[in-house]
Amino acid sequence: MSYSAPLKDMLFNLEHLAGLDQVAQIPGFEDAGLETAQAVLEECAKLAEGVIAPLNRAGDLAPSSWKDGVVTTTEGFKQAFRQYAEGGWQGLQHPQDFGGQGLPKAIGAACIEMINAANLSFALCPLLTDGAIEALLTAGSDEIKATYLEKMVTGEWTGTMNLTEPQAGSDLALVRTRAEPQADKSYKVFGTKIFITYGEHDMAENIVHLVLARVAGAPEGIKGISLFVVPKFLVNQDGSLGARNDVQCVSIEHKLGIKASPTAVLQFGDGIQGSVADSTGAGAVGYLVGEENRGLEYMFIMMNSARYAVGVQGIAIADRAYQQAAAFAKERVQSRPVDGSVKASATIIHHPDVRRMLMGMRSLTEGCRALSATAAAAYDLAHHHPDAAQRAHNAAIYEFMVPLVKGYSTEIGLEVTNLGVQVHGGMGFIEETGAAQHYRDAKILTIYEGTTAIQANDLVGRKTLRDGGATARELAGQIAQTEQQLQASGTPAALSVARQLQSARLAFLEVVDYVLANAKTQPNAVYAGSVPYLMLAGNLMAGWQLGRALCVAEQLLPTGQDERFLRAKIATAQFYAEHILVRVSSLRDSVLQGGNSVMALAIEDF
Amino acid sequence: MSYSAPLKDMLFNLEHLAGLDQVAQIPGFEDAGLETAQAVLEECAKLAEGVIAPLNRAGDLAPSSWKDGVVTTTEGFKQAFRQYAEGGWQGLQHPQDFGGQGLPKAIGAACIEMINAANLSFALCPLLTDGAIEALLTAGSDEIKATYLEKMVTGEWTGTMNLTEPQAGSDLALVRTRAEPQADKSYKVFGTKIFITYGEHDMAENIVHLVLARVAGAPEGIKGISLFVVPKFLVNQDGSLGARNDVQCVSIEHKLGIKASPTAVLQFGDGIQGSVADSTGAGAVGYLVGEENRGLEYMFIMMNSARYAVGVQGIAIADRAYQQAAAFAKERVQSRPVDGSVKASATIIHHPDVRRMLMGMRSLTEGCRALSATAAAAYDLAHHHPDAAQRAHNAAIYEFMVPLVKGYSTEIGLEVTNLGVQVHGGMGFIEETGAAQHYRDAKILTIYEGTTAIQANDLVGRKTLRDGGATARELAGQIAQTEQQLQASGTPAALSVARQLQSARLAFLEVVDYVLANAKTQPNAVYAGSVPYLMLAGNLMAGWQLGRALCVAEQLLPTGQDERFLRAKIATAQFYAEHILVRVSSLRDSVLQGGNSVMALAIEDF
Repeated sequence: MSYSAPLKDMLFNLEHLAGLDQVAQIPGFEDAGLETAQAVLEECAKLAEGVIAPLNRAGDLAPSSWKDGVVTTTEGFKQAFRQYAEGGWQGLQHPQDFGGQGLPKAIGAACIEMINAANLSFALCPLLTDGAIEALLTAGSDEIKATYLEKMVTGEWTGTMNLTEPQAGSDLALVRTRAEPQADKSYKVFGTKIFITYGEHDMAENIVHLVLARVAGAPEGIKGISLFVVPKFLVNQDGSLGARNDVQCVSIEHKLGIKASPTAVLQFGDGIQGSVADSTGAGAVGYLVGEENRGLEYMFIMMNSARYAVGVQGIAIADRAYQQAAAFAKERVQSRPVDGSVKASATIIHHPDVRRMLMGMRSLTEGCRALSATAAAAYDLAHHHPDAAQRAHNAAIYEFMVPLVKGYSTEIGLEVTNLGVQVHGGMGFIEETGAAQHYRDAKILTIYEGTTAIQANDLVGRKTLRDGGATARELAGQIAQTEQQLQASGTPAALSVARQLQSARLAFLEVVDYVLANAKTQPNAVYAGSVPYLMLAGNLMAGWQLGRALCVAEQLLPTGQDERFLRAKIATAQFYAEHILVRVSSLRDSVLQGGNSVMALAIEDF
Repeated sequence: MSYSAPLKDMLFNLEHLAGLDQVAQIPGFEDAGLETAQAVLEECAKLAEGVIAPLNRAGDLAPSSWKDGVVTTTEGFKQAFRQYAEGGWQGLQHPQDFGGQGLPKAIGAACIEMINAANLSFALCPLLTDGAIEALLTAGSDEIKATYLEKMVTGEWTGTMNLTEPQAGSDLALVRTRAEPQADKSYKVFGTKIFITYGEHDMAENIVHLVLARVAGAPEGIKGISLFVVPKFLVNQDGSLGARNDVQCVSIEHKLGIKASPTAVLQFGDGIQGSVADSTGAGAVGYLVGEENRGLEYMFIMMNSARYAVGVQGIAIADRAYQQAAAFAKERVQSRPVDGSVKASATIIHHPDVRRMLMGMRSLTEGCRALSATAAAAYDLAHHHPDAAQRAHNAAIYEFMVPLVKGYSTEIGLEVTNLGVQVHGGMGFIEETGAAQHYRDAKILTIYEGTTAIQANDLVGRKTLRDGGATARELAGQIAQTEQQLQASGTPAALSVARQLQSARLAFLEVVDYVLANAKTQPNAVYAGSVPYLMLAGNLMAGWQLGRALCVAEQLLPTGQDERFLRAKIATAQFYAEHILVRVSSLRDSVLQGGNSVMALAIEDF
């Protein structure tokens, strides 16, 4: 059940796929080259492997608990989070102005994967805090920034996202929490928020809630939503903690997985005793972020940061499950190999189907990791490149990739953790083994921060239709170049990957054309195919990165260094092409041929 | 969380796909026509819906518990099992000679689905007892039959299968439990068995363990395994219960799902106090079933019965998850429909992706149900038809179908229960909702009674290679006839299904040819493709049955009866063809092109 961070793979991706050299040429990132990446990743691996991973099972067995409004996290979490904060990990990607390290997302993403692979429940706290920091950086006033950011970047305080209400899940138009303007320009916030990850806990001195709410008289629907900072404790002028705010955790959920992370129901403005309500009356004190009625826009900053990170969670849990299954398969002895290579019962990794499962787990994980690494580099270029055209170009690519990183990697997380249990056989079903925890933990990933369907809507609407398919086609053009490289190599592995990649790319283009042609006239048919389109696109983009990796590996082989790693990379890329990329044709058929049968059955006949 | 038995669909399958009329022409089954089926199914539905389903969540919350060797099942289980037994349900398919009702498996399978959909954990007890009864019927001596069968058929006693040991899971060659012959022709059994479902419980007076063990001097490996009856309480000459046997439940497992069903570790022959060991010394008293060293053969009778039934469990849990998700989707209001058909937030069933998930769940469930119904009818003909050629012909078909019913339906159970959580969004991840329980419960189904890989090995080895592909090709021929029928109909739905069915059938034949041509020379490559082959074949066979169902539905439509049901059947078949059958091409590609990349990575590089 131990975890070993895949440093070699991460560094390979950074150097050869994500182009960290290029990122390190951007002003401000000069020190963020490969050497820095290696040092940072190695330190992070120590923390993840040595401190955080050992708490994973404990968190499942003794989850966070609630009593009288107080949430106590699993024993060890608080201390581990102190180490995390004191090591500067919360600030890794955030500006040095606020106490961060200002490193590129490309490096940060690798660290996020490690922390999540070590312990998904633990990692959610910094993950949400990252999102809150980004929202305040973008939209917060100078005063808000000065009051909250440094404490959050240093991990002294944590952040939350308060979107969901009982009647408002994916549909934020239904948000009812209300904010009443006060004479001092603050607001009083009233309402109930549910599913608030780390909405209450004992790991930090203060919790900075970012809360969506309506100001009286605001327009209906999503255009009337504003964003507020509502701290658990008010902050005095000197930065010290003041009165307890009128926000209360009334319960936490009993969940399928990620049990150690408290999922809170928060009540704002109930006039709780001992809070600021005692002196000023009921109402949680909140401060407007940016302008009124632009809350959703700001929240999307958090959401986009969090969506990418949740995609990385999918990769993280997949890797953890893979490592555990591979270790088990190398130890567990059952049955003779079908090829007669061993004359007695052998370790199950000798059996072709176990091998198929492990290769599937491995190649899916590496494919998604490579995709996420290149997407992160695009983010860095999009945000920091001195050239505006470069920024715009990379922004379009990153934006296209976010729903794929989120949607595809998390669905893959489900597939891989399922295979992880399957490799264990009956032992996998016993909780003590630990494989089942990954299967349970992973299931939230395709749901929170926007379900797979929401990602797919985003892919169709904002990422494909809006630019008339330009980004999609440009990526297809880049993939065609990789195919040419593979063909030029001419090895059997390269040729096989080239063939599957071409076939997948053509299928992708067919689907993009279909989406563009029919979205207006047949929206139901097109959106019925949105998830298959997302799965197809994610599959292709991950396969493309593995195709690029294969080319690099072949080029590096003659150096004689890392030969086993490079040969493994080639074998993994070939497996992905022949077993995973081949799924693309079915997905295409489902989109192109099945648009109408989705809605054919009347609602009352379900 | 209620359950409503799909009686209409089951009766449609029995009448139009499984050919119950034909079964009812067999001597002994004269009273087992459609009218009987309807009456039996309606009664069973009452029990499943009214008595057993309400205990499902209770069993998850308060699982079976162990104390000092005694297992106490969830409150209500014991009483429900009494009702089950007194209603004659345990004996439904078993001979009237032993107190059963002697009904065909085709009818029995539908009842098994209902009981399992109501409560998977509960249903496991009768499921295992069924298997034990079949083994004793086939291989037990007259004395053993007289002593045990009636009590088991009437549900007064229950049965278990004791195969697995810590070192012997799928690999029964590794069984170490030993049996020592005694002067009175009984044996003394010593050893540890694990994963024994309902190996100890309080729902019946006695438990009849069927135990695999080795007699001293037996050949190595699976040819030296014998089968023994080891009752929890010895049975006196007059049928009353005698001394406690020297078998003890030393613990039960803490599992991912099916928590209410106790999964026991049984210790045989430890010389426990208060048992028969007090007078005769340590050793559990056992009685040989059939001949020595033929245990595996007899156990396969149980296994085959249980494998089919576990396949039905996959269908059952899928239906339960589907019903719950459909009900939720018709109630939960979120977001406006993309087609503008509703101008405000609407129930989520209006959204194309939710519809796609529900149609997927529905069509997969109905497809697998139709497949299982036809397989059950083949069993009835194989075992009871007066004509030997008919028996042999149907036996081959049934045997081919067993790994598909088991392997495909249970993998589909995973897919459908996952979608069930997904339809619920965040609510699905909260245990109180109940959707997560299905997701957890389902995961054992692809593992026990032979993992999906074991089913796939069976499909390749015993079911395809052994007869040189004859059965596979015959089935393909029958499918081609269905395609012709569909083409003759000429409706858009029928033509679409015909097209997908043809394409899937041709892919199936390509894979069969590949398996036949390469199994000897490239066993690793062929067995690496065994699970994709199984998934392809299962997908095709289920789709074929839905294609047949579509033809029948179109023919019945003009009668004006059951129009909504018939139109739903047509829509469901078309969806299956356009979204599920299309997966076949990818599976074929994986088998035909990916044989070598599965084993390319060296073991030490995982």
